Amino acid sequence: MIKKYCFGESVNTGATVLKLDSSQEELSYFKVKKQDQDTKGYQFIYLMDEKTQVFGLGENVRGMNKRGFIYESHCSDDPNHDEGKRSLYGAHNFILIRGKQNLGVFIDFPGKVRFDLGYTDKDEIRIEVDGEDFDFYLICEHSISEIAKRFRNLIGKSYVAPKWALGYQQSRWSYKNEAEVEAVIKGYRENKLPLDAVYLDIDYMERYKDFTVNKKAFPDLKCFAKHLKEQGIRLVPIIDAGVKIEKGYDVYEEGVKEDYFCKDANGKDFIGAVWPGKVHFPDFLQEKTRRWFGDKYKVLMDMGIEGFWNDMNEPALFYSEEGLKEAFEALDQLRALENIGIDEYFEMQNIMGSIQNSEKDYGRMYHQYNGEMVCHNKVHNLYGYNMTKAASEAFDRIEPDKRILLFSRASYIGMHRYGGIWTGDNKSWWSHLKMNIQMMPGLNLCGFIYSGADLGGFGDHATEDLVMRWLEFGIFTPLMRNHAAIGTREQEAYRFKDLEGFRNILNLRYSLMPYLYSEYMKAILEDKMYFRPIGFDYEEDEMAWQVEDQLMVGESMMIAPIYTQNAKGRYVYLPSDMLMLRIRSMEDMDRKVMEKGHHYIEVGLNEVLCFIKPNHLVPTTNPSLCIDTLKEDKLNLWGYVTSEATYMLYQDDGYTKKYEDETHYTKIGIKKQEEKYELSLSRNTVKINMNIN
Amino acid sequence: MIKKYCFGESVNTGATVLKLDSSQEELSYFKVKKQDQDTKGYQFIYLMDEKTQVFGLGENVRGMNKRGFIYESHCSDDPNHDEGKRSLYGAHNFILIRGKQNLGVFIDFPGKVRFDLGYTDKDEIRIEVDGEDFDFYLICEHSISEIAKRFRNLIGKSYVAPKWALGYQQSRWSYKNEAEVEAVIKGYRENKLPLDAVYLDIDYMERYKDFTVNKKAFPDLKCFAKHLKEQGIRLVPIIDAGVKIEKGYDVYEEGVKEDYFCKDANGKDFIGAVWPGKVHFPDFLQEKTRRWFGDKYKVLMDMGIEGFWNDMNEPALFYSEEGLKEAFEALDQLRALENIGIDEYFEMQNIMGSIQNSEKDYGRMYHQYNGEMVCHNKVHNLYGYNMTKAASEAFDRIEPDKRILLFSRASYIGMHRYGGIWTGDNKSWWSHLKMNIQMMPGLNLCGFIYSGADLGGFGDHATEDLVMRWLEFGIFTPLMRNHAAIGTREQEAYRFKDLEGFRNILNLRYSLMPYLYSEYMKAILEDKMYFRPIGFDYEEDEMAWQVEDQLMVGESMMIAPIYTQNAKGRYVYLPSDMLMLRIRSMEDMDRKVMEKGHHYIEVGLNEVLCFIKPNHLVPTTNPSLCIDTLKEDKLNLWGYVTSEATYMLYQDDGYTKKYEDETHYTKIGIKKQEEKYELSLSRNTVKINMNIN
Repeated sequence: MIKKYCFGESVNTGATVLKLDSSQEELSYFKVKKQDQDTKGYQFIYLMDEKTQVFGLGENVRGMNKRGFIYESHCSDDPNHDEGKRSLYGAHNFILIRGKQNLGVFIDFPGKVRFDLGYTDKDEIRIEVDGEDFDFYLICEHSISEIAKRFRNLIGKSYVAPKWALGYQQSRWSYKNEAEVEAVIKGYRENKLPLDAVYLDIDYMERYKDFTVNKKAFPDLKCFAKHLKEQGIRLVPIIDAGVKIEKGYDVYEEGVKEDYFCKDANGKDFIGAVWPGKVHFPDFLQEKTRRWFGDKYKVLMDMGIEGFWNDMNEPALFYSEEGLKEAFEALDQLRALENIGIDEYFEMQNIMGSIQNSEKDYGRMYHQYNGEMVCHNKVHNLYGYNMTKAASEAFDRIEPDKRILLFSRASYIGMHRYGGIWTGDNKSWWSHLKMNIQMMPGLNLCGFIYSGADLGGFGDHATEDLVMRWLEFGIFTPLMRNHAAIGTREQEAYRFKDLEGFRNILNLRYSLMPYLYSEYMKAILEDKMYFRPIGFDYEEDEMAWQVEDQLMVGESMMIAPIYTQNAKGRYVYLPSDMLMLRIRSMEDMDRKVMEKGHHYIEVGLNEVLCFIKPNHLVPTTNPSLCIDTLKEDKLNLWGYVTSEATYMLYQDDGYTKKYEDETHYTKIGIKKQEEKYELSLSRNTVKINMNIN
Repeated sequence: MIKKYCFGESVNTGATVLKLDSSQEELSYFKVKKQDQDTKGYQFIYLMDEKTQVFGLGENVRGMNKRGFIYESHCSDDPNHDEGKRSLYGAHNFILIRGKQNLGVFIDFPGKVRFDLGYTDKDEIRIEVDGEDFDFYLICEHSISEIAKRFRNLIGKSYVAPKWALGYQQSRWSYKNEAEVEAVIKGYRENKLPLDAVYLDIDYMERYKDFTVNKKAFPDLKCFAKHLKEQGIRLVPIIDAGVKIEKGYDVYEEGVKEDYFCKDANGKDFIGAVWPGKVHFPDFLQEKTRRWFGDKYKVLMDMGIEGFWNDMNEPALFYSEEGLKEAFEALDQLRALENIGIDEYFEMQNIMGSIQNSEKDYGRMYHQYNGEMVCHNKVHNLYGYNMTKAASEAFDRIEPDKRILLFSRASYIGMHRYGGIWTGDNKSWWSHLKMNIQMMPGLNLCGFIYSGADLGGFGDHATEDLVMRWLEFGIFTPLMRNHAAIGTREQEAYRFKDLEGFRNILNLRYSLMPYLYSEYMKAILEDKMYFRPIGFDYEEDEMAWQVEDQLMVGESMMIAPIYTQNAKGRYVYLPSDMLMLRIRSMEDMDRKVMEKGHHYIEVGLNEVLCFIKPNHLVPTTNPSLCIDTLKEDKLNLWGYVTSEATYMLYQDDGYTKKYEDETHYTKIGIKKQEEKYELSLSRNTVKINMNIN
C-alpha cells in the first residue's frame, strides 16, 4: 500500500505517474519534527533495531545495505567517488527499510534531502528535508520485493534501450577523429572481439559546441556512421548541458533570442564556464526549452546517429564570471598583505579550490519554473533529469517508432522513464569494481535498469587483470561500456596480452543475450528488478541478507564476481542448492551442482563464476561480433532442473517500440522424468538444444 | 644467503648494519638494463609465473601481496591514501618474492626507486632505480620466513618502545590546553576506560615553534605532566621538522649561526613554509645538526616528557618563497590575457595545486652530505629518517638507560633502529581499516615493529561502529593510538553509546599484555615478524598464501578482524585446526576448537575474533587502567594443547634498556596427560591459572 503525505505545497517534479491523494492519517513509523524557523525544513526519525537494514538511494557509495553512513541528495560532478562522499551525480531519494515492518520511503523534493542512516546515532534513521514543500511517500508491504515493485508502479515504466545497446561498447575521452575510431574498430574486429558501438567524447564537436561536428576530424559524419553501421558498429556522441556563447552559433543565437536560457538575478542570461568556455545553460525546466533543445538532436540523428549520452548536466559549473572575479579579488586582497603567512596561503588554496560547482554560483542562476523565477538551488536535482527528458520527448517526435540509446550522468527519480544512466567518473581501482557491483541493485530499485559503470575505470591507469575482472562483471550489466579518461593507459580489450581470455569474456556476453535481453525487458515491462541483493529472493534466509558481494541477475542466475586484486577464488554463499558454472568459454566450463551453504570456490583470472537457481533455465546462443548479426533462433538451454522448470523467453525486433506483443514470448518448459528432461515450447519459433543438470 | 651488488659508488645511507663485500658474481634471477644516458639509472627485470607473489614495500597501499601495481619510493606528505597512490610517507625498498626460488631484494638508494610489480606487464617485475650509485642486496633462502629474518639481520635490531607505549593512547589535532587534556582523561577514567597517554598536536607549541610551549595553554607543563603521570598518563608532544624563522627564537638563531640548516643554490639558508609559516629545515644529514637538534628534545624531557612523535619530516613543504612567487607570476600572466578561457582556468588551478611539496622546490634545497653539497632530490628519502635518528641518538646521551617513546611519519629502512612509525593521515573509512590490516606485515618486514595507524581514522568523520571495529583490530597493533583531525567528529571511546563494549575492547588489550609484550619484545630481540601473512607460518599451504585479511600475531595467535560496514560475521580460513575465541569480555567469550579449512563465523559488533594455534599458549592477566598498574605476577594461561606446548614468557621492567637478561624469560610448559594438563615453569616468579582447551 502506498500512502502519500503532502507537506506544504508539493512541487511537481514529475517523478511519479500514479496520482494519489494526500493521506489524512498521521504518518506512522516516523517521528516528524519541524525544523526551526531558520532551517525551514523537516526531520523524520525512525528507530532501528540491530537487524534493521536499509537499501536504496540509487547512485551512492558504500554497500548495498546503506546503514551506517549519511547521504545527501545533491547531484554532484565529483570524480572522487570515495567512501566519504555523500552525493554523486544522481539524486535518488528512495530507501527501503528492512525492519520489523518493511517500508519504502520516497521523498519527492528537488532540493537537498539528507539520509542519516545510523551515522549520527547508530540506532536512528534521520531524514532531513531542506524545505517545507514536498511529498513523503510511504510504502508498506509484507515483502521487500513487493515494496520495490510498488515503488516502480508509482514512478512509471523504465526506459527501453535498443537491443544493440546491450552489446559491448568502447569509449574513451577521446577518439578524436575518424582514423582513431577506425583503429579501435580494427583492434576489435581483427582480433575477433565483439563490439557494437564506439563513443565520441567532447572532442568530436567543433570547439565543444553541442550539435556541431569538427569537420577536420570527421569530414562526413553521415557517411562515416553509415560505413560503420555496415560493420555493425554505432557511433554514440556526447551532448553537454552548456551552450557555448559564440556569435553566429545557431544554438546560442536561438537560445538568446527565444529566452531559452537560465537567467541571473537581473534577468540576463546566466553565464557559466564549462568545456566550451563561457556558456549559457538551457532552462530545461521550461517546456519550451526542452522542446527546442530536444529537437536539436535531429541534427545528429539525420547523420545516422542512434544514441547519445548527456553529460555535465548536474550541471557541472567550472566557474561563473562573477565567481571567478570574486575569487581573484579575494586572492588579491590576501596578496596585498605585507606578509603572506600560512593562514593566507591556505585561504588562497581554499578560494581556488571552491570555485568549481559552488553553491554560491548555483544560487546566482534562475529558472522559470511553473511560471515563477526559481533559484537553481531549490530545483538543482531536476536539471539533468529534464535535459534527458527533453531529448527523449524529442526522439518520440522525430522517430516515434524507433528506440534511441540515451543515458545521462545527472538524474532524479522519474528520469528512468526517459533514459538510463552511467555512474560517472569512477577510477581504475578494484574498490570501484566492488562499488559498481554494490551500486547496481540500488539503481534498479530507483528504476534505472539500463545502467552501468565505466568498465575498467575512467580515471587512473588500469591493469590487465583489473580490466579483465571488471569485464567479467560487466557481462551482466545492461550498459556494458569500457571507458577511460584522457591521459590514462589505453584499456581497450585488444591492448592486453590475453586476447583469448578477453574474447571468451566478450563472447559470453553475446552468448547470454537471449537470457540477458529477456530479463532486461521483463524487468522493465513487469516493474521488476534486474539486479537484486540475494536476500530479495530468499527473504527468510538471514544469511542471504548479509551477503554484500553477490547479485541475483534476472530470475534464474546468481553471480559472485571477483573484485579483489590477485584473488584466485572467493567465498560464495548459496541460499539454496544451485548449479555452479565456472566458464572459461562457451566450449570449456565446469558445471557442478553445489549445496546450499558457504563455499570457497577457486576462480581463475579468465573464468566467470555464476550460478543457476534450482528449477530455473538460462537460454543462450552462439556469439557473434555484434548484436545485429546475433542469431537467436536456435538456442542452447542451460538449466538446473530437479522436477520442472519454465522460462519465459522474450524476443522482439530490438529496435522498435512494440514491446507488448504476446508473440514476443515463448514459454519454455522442462520436466524431469526418470532422469530424462522433457521439453515443451509454447511456440515453435525457436529450436532448443538442452544442456540441463 | 645475502649477496650485495654495488652499482657505481654506493651512498652510505646507514640502512644496513652488516658489512658485506660486493659480490663478484653476475646478478642472477634479474635481467639488468642500464637506462639511456638521459635517464641515468638501471632497470632490473624478473619474470613471474602465475603463482608468484610479492610481499614487502612497507608502508604502501593495496594488499599484502603487492603484485599488480606500481610503487615509487618517495616519502610523500599526501593525505589521500587511495588505491592509486604510488608513495606514502615511507620509502621502504624491500620486496620479498615468493616464486620458484624465494628471494629478497633490497635497493639501498636514497632517491626514487620504482617497483613495477606486474603493472605494466602482468608477468614482469621491473625495478627501476633513478640513479647509478646504489647497492642491490639479494637474499636467497628456501623459506620465506628465513629471508625475512635474514633481511632483519642485515638492517639491525628494531627500536624498543617503553612498555607504557603499548598501552592505549588518545590523540587529536588538537587538545589545545590543560583543560582539554584533563577533559579527555576524565572521559576515560570516569568511564573506567584504560588509557596510557594523551598526545599534544601542533597547537601546544608557541606559534608552532619546536621545543617551545604555549604558556597560556599550558602554564606549567612540567607540573602538569607530573600530575598526569601520577594518574598513569603520559603526554606525548609532536615535533615538526621545520624551524620557524623568528628573530630571538633560540633554535632559529643557533641554527643560522652554526650553519645547521639546509641551503639554497646560493648557499643561503633555504626558506620553506609549513605550519609556523616561514621556516628553515635542519640539515639532518649532517652529524653536527643531528647532535644539536637532538639535544633540543631535552627541553621537553626536563619537563617530564617521555615520548615524542616526529612529524612533517618528508619534509612536508607547503610552499617556498620562490615557488609561491613563480606561481603568482604565472597566475598574473594568465589573468593579463584578454579572455580567461577554460584552458587558462585549468592552468591556474594546476598552478595553485602544484605548489605544495613540489619537486621543483625540493630541487632548490641542498644538504651537506658526506662533505659535498647534495641536492635534496637525490637524498629526499633520508630526511625524516635522520631527524628521528637525531632524536634517538640524543635520547641515548640524555637518558642512556631509559626507553623514550619515539615514532616518525617519514622513514627509510634503517630508521626502524631509532623509532617506530605511524602510518600518517588516513581517513575514517572502512577501506582504511582494511589497509591498516594489510599494511602491518609489510612494515614488520622492513623492521618497523612499533607501528600502527590512526585508529578510527584521522580525516573525515567516524561512526561508532567503525571506531569499535577499528579498535578491535588495534588491540593487536603495538602502537594503539586513536587519533583524529581538526574539524572531524570527536571519536574518543567515551563519546559513543556502547561504553561497555568499548571498555571490554580496551580491557582486552591490557589483559593480553603478557602475550603481546612478550611477542613484541621477542620479535625485536630475535629479528622475527610480529605480524605475518598466514602463509608465512604455513608455507606449504597454497590456500594460506591467498588469504589477505587475516594475520598471525606473535607465535600463538591468528586474528581475523572485521573490516566491513554492517558485517555480522566473516569468512575465515584455518590453515590448521585452531581454538577459536570469540571474546565479548574477559568473563564472557566463546571457545571452540575448529577444524582446518574454511568457515563462516558470526561476529557481533562488540566481539573480537581470534584463534590459538594448536599446542600454543597465550598468557593473559587482569586488565588495569594503565600499564603502570598492570599486575602480571598471576597469569591466566589460554591455550590449545593436544599434546604439549611451551611458551617463552618475556617480562622486564618495561622502562630500562636491559633487554637481554635471561631472568626476563620464563618457560611455561603444558603437557596433556590423560585429559589433564600438567604445568611446568622454568622460574617461579609468576603464578599460572590454566584455561586450556
